[in-house]
Amino acid sequence: MDLNWNVIFRVTGALFIVIGFSMIPAMIVSAIYTEPDIIEAFIKTIIPSILFGGLLILLNKQKEGRTKVRDGYIIVALCWILASCVAAAPFVISGEIANPIDAFFETCSGFSTTGASILTDVEAMSKGLLFWRSFTHWLGGMGILIFAIALLPNLGISGQAIAKAETPGPTLDKLTPKLSDTAKMLYLLYLCFTATETILLMFGGLSPFDSLVHTFGTVGTGGFSSYNDSIAHFDSAYVDIVISIFMILSGVNFNLYFIIIRQNLKGFFKDAELRLYLAIIGTSTLLIGIYLYVAGDINNIWTSFRYSLFQTATIISTTGFVTTDFYLWPTFCKMLLLLLMFVGACSCSTGGGVKVIRILVILKLIKRGVSLKLHPNAFVSLKMNNKPLPVDTVSAIASFVFLYIFTIFAGTIIVSIDDFSLLTNFSAVVACLGNIGPGFDLVGPVMNYSIFSNVSKLLLSFIMLAGRLELFTIFLLLTPRFWNPNR
Amino acid sequence: MDLNWNVIFRVTGALFIVIGFSMIPAMIVSAIYTEPDIIEAFIKTIIPSILFGGLLILLNKQKEGRTKVRDGYIIVALCWILASCVAAAPFVISGEIANPIDAFFETCSGFSTTGASILTDVEAMSKGLLFWRSFTHWLGGMGILIFAIALLPNLGISGQAIAKAETPGPTLDKLTPKLSDTAKMLYLLYLCFTATETILLMFGGLSPFDSLVHTFGTVGTGGFSSYNDSIAHFDSAYVDIVISIFMILSGVNFNLYFIIIRQNLKGFFKDAELRLYLAIIGTSTLLIGIYLYVAGDINNIWTSFRYSLFQTATIISTTGFVTTDFYLWPTFCKMLLLLLMFVGACSCSTGGGVKVIRILVILKLIKRGVSLKLHPNAFVSLKMNNKPLPVDTVSAIASFVFLYIFTIFAGTIIVSIDDFSLLTNFSAVVACLGNIGPGFDLVGPVMNYSIFSNVSKLLLSFIMLAGRLELFTIFLLLTPRFWNPNR
Repeated sequence: MDLNWNVIFRVTGALFIVIGFSMIPAMIVSAIYTEPDIIEAFIKTIIPSILFGGLLILLNKQKEGRTKVRDGYIIVALCWILASCVAAAPFVISGEIANPIDAFFETCSGFSTTGASILTDVEAMSKGLLFWRSFTHWLGGMGILIFAIALLPNLGISGQAIAKAETPGPTLDKLTPKLSDTAKMLYLLYLCFTATETILLMFGGLSPFDSLVHTFGTVGTGGFSSYNDSIAHFDSAYVDIVISIFMILSGVNFNLYFIIIRQNLKGFFKDAELRLYLAIIGTSTLLIGIYLYVAGDINNIWTSFRYSLFQTATIISTTGFVTTDFYLWPTFCKMLLLLLMFVGACSCSTGGGVKVIRILVILKLIKRGVSLKLHPNAFVSLKMNNKPLPVDTVSAIASFVFLYIFTIFAGTIIVSIDDFSLLTNFSAVVACLGNIGPGFDLVGPVMNYSIFSNVSKLLLSFIMLAGRLELFTIFLLLTPRFWNPNR
Repeated sequence: MDLNWNVIFRVTGALFIVIGFSMIPAMIVSAIYTEPDIIEAFIKTIIPSILFGGLLILLNKQKEGRTKVRDGYIIVALCWILASCVAAAPFVISGEIANPIDAFFETCSGFSTTGASILTDVEAMSKGLLFWRSFTHWLGGMGILIFAIALLPNLGISGQAIAKAETPGPTLDKLTPKLSDTAKMLYLLYLCFTATETILLMFGGLSPFDSLVHTFGTVGTGGFSSYNDSIAHFDSAYVDIVISIFMILSGVNFNLYFIIIRQNLKGFFKDAELRLYLAIIGTSTLLIGIYLYVAGDINNIWTSFRYSLFQTATIISTTGFVTTDFYLWPTFCKMLLLLLMFVGACSCSTGGGVKVIRILVILKLIKRGVSLKLHPNAFVSLKMNNKPLPVDTVSAIASFVFLYIFTIFAGTIIVSIDDFSLLTNFSAVVACLGNIGPGFDLVGPVMNYSIFSNVSKLLLSFIMLAGRLELFTIFLLLTPRFWNPNR
């Protein structure tokens, strides 16, 4: 096994340093709100983390060999797991989340932008740790390592290998010749979104703290809130709409925004994935909005659409904020939301799920399957944005979706040992794998994940990471062939 | 639109005659149990049915044109729907199922070998109609039209076109040069199974009536019983085991039995699909059996395995008999059974579901997808029984499975308008599409489908037929291109 351990350790080292420094804003928040215990917990994490990271880099300064695909996968999987461990430290040290597995679950949920929580009373937490918890969404949304590459381009590793394993979508267009430049551009756009939403929320009367926390949850499509009743706490149509819009925007392929800059809006709306994404949001909002009104659940048509748009946006973008307990909605509406949980956001967005582009390919595959029954000899290749899709791309997409479904079944069976209801277990796995957060029944919008056993929590943590890293990165490490390529 | 209406009407006519004559055994049962009203209801159906069928054939004696694939699909879809209508007539005429939609649901469930029932008290029904209801399983198991072809080979239609649209599996090996000969051989084997099981059940103390009814339900993998508590009524380990074995045998690819005759048992067990099928049954029986015992649901390990084997066999073969209310079992066991509902039986068996061979291809597709991430340029074709699978076969299988999942989602959303629980609706659609019968919650093992609205019952009826006809046959008729090929 000829892994390039030098590079692996160097990147891991860089990760420790980056995570260490990323805690400083949260520590400042703790200072503002005078939370000495929390400051201490942060310091006890930051200093060892940075020192250990620096040491790892220094000890592995040797001349590098070739970095292979295999190294990229190990780096990504290892770094996401280690990042979650380091990020969990302040929770455990401060005692605010005493059980290390709970803390690990919470930070996996943060970095993977899931937003599933084991906390039964969020409002009892310190401000510093709440800020840090939400900041992990922000870091994870764009990819922790893409972030590291942007900050530290001289790690001596072809970033492409990492991007391949970490990218939240089937294709990453190279916008610029150098990957670190692309990463910087993406983060710049991400910062713009963050700044704009924060300001808009402050206009809506939110404190700077609340604005930032909920912006991190929105643009990272995470869903952690600083209130037990999430966005319902503000009970403001303005806030609902601002967050709805930014959730939808964060679910769009970020590369498309560069098309607006370079070309125009027409080029933007030509994209087949975007069109389907918007069509699904429109249809779902309309159906749920009308249904809630007609079925008499909500008496005001305007309120009905406000809730329907928000829940549609929060589920399809895989954010997971809540403005109302949709588990109490009619089954028709719940079933539509369950469908959206599978669909997920666009490729190369911060969202999760199967991704709209794959759904589009699947629909085309079904259509061809039906017409092939009539014309068995007319096997034509599928097209996307007027370009033919190679057979192996279609095959890769099909195998991804099957692995996705397989993971849901396997995960649900194992979680079922805890013996909660079928719907609880199934929706918990769907919500974790799709990086959504709330599910149905005991993990519904006003519930949390504290009920599960430690084994299930660990499993769900890995399912969240697997979902964020598009399954293969985690599953590859489980195959014997990965570790023994000559088999 | 140049459909070959002569042939279509001729086959439809033959179908009416065959269905008419098939009611005679049930009428004899009515005579034995002296049920004059039921005999009258049968006569009122049989005579018009045969006369009308004969008329259709006589009026369409013209020289035939070429039969096309399109004609085959129309014939099959039309005949299954008409067969269900005709078969429903005695129920409505006798008044035992007054609502025509209920009666249609019941016979669709019969022919499609689903076994879902709207009857709340089966034991209150007349013997003649109970016999007829179960006999539809027997007819539907092998394909009503295959049956018609075997009986009436001189219809002037290439049976291959029909077989293609009706076959319960991706491949139908031609065993003999003439299709009607193959059909006869299959029915001969089917008769042997039927005779053997009936005799074995009579040895177990069942009346000839009960033996026949439950044999029809077993070999057709249907699941209608003449008792409200299904097989639990007999409370006999012997009966449970006989039925378990025959359910498993009926879920095997029938072509494989000819391999035993022509070659040996070794050739039989070499088949990859059969091996996976048996492996799944073994694993599931073991896991559920141990779990029920360890969790304390059943105190005796032998009883535990008896129930576990029976429910595994009944679900994977998509029969749907019940020996215990498995909805009360631990979630882990229920989740395993839900998984089996998707898997289904082998191709070219009388069972439904996705089919084991497709699951096998999907697993291979996932495996290749994972290894392609490591070796992106090593795209190799998948193999089955040591033969490479063509790309378009794999693509057809993938599109079938996606259409299957799509149908479940779409069906559940529409059925959800009735506003029962998510699990009720979801499992009802899964159980109907997979031709299983019982689902969970309100359509659980001791419940029935009478709760649904007429719209949902009709939809579920078509879903049962769609499942039996492997989806494409029904979906093709819904595409505009089918009706207007020049578009």
